[in-house]
Amino acid sequence: MSAEVEELLKRFQSMKNITGIVVIDNDGIAIKTTLDYNLTLHYAALMQTLREKARQVVLDLDATNEFTFLRLRTELHEVMLCPQEDYFIMVLQTPSD
Amino acid sequence: MSAEVEELLKRFQSMKNITGIVVIDNDGIAIKTTLDYNLTLHYAALMQTLREKARQVVLDLDATNEFTFLRLRTELHEVMLCPQEDYFIMVLQTPSD
Repeated sequence: MSAEVEELLKRFQSMKNITGIVVIDNDGIAIKTTLDYNLTLHYAALMQTLREKARQVVLDLDATNEFTFLRLRTELHEVMLCPQEDYFIMVLQTPSD
Repeated sequence: MSAEVEELLKRFQSMKNITGIVVIDNDGIAIKTTLDYNLTLHYAALMQTLREKARQVVLDLDATNEFTFLRLRTELHEVMLCPQEDYFIMVLQTPSD
């Protein structure tokens, strides 16, 4: 997994206005993070539930389909979830005006 | 609400590769749809749960923040959720290769 994660992290880090990246395993545990400890725990737990909901919704509509990317825009920032087999990557981005 | 919904619908309908649009109220009831009856029911119920989860996750991280747009990419198509006060719009798009 390690080289693949590093490659993905590099790709995300090169994007503009990235304010945080967390790699979260399928149990909701952060295995890599650029955020502080408390924020990491909070984001990991919540994004794990959002990832799981998205996965379920997609499978429920079509069992042959698979969720590959989620982008959540909010008033303050954007959150991207990029699911892989054993983990997923969460990227926080502050939109440029 | 009506003129505002019509305006949003027009904007989405002018986008490329749109295969379905459903307007769903806060109880998960489809109030406007371009899909058939069964698909509409299925999408409305599931997307309402996804919208609610996204809303909760964003509020839980920051009670002053608000979820404004969600894009879910899957192997087969993309789903966009555009929340408004009393309803939300779901747009299904088939990605162009």
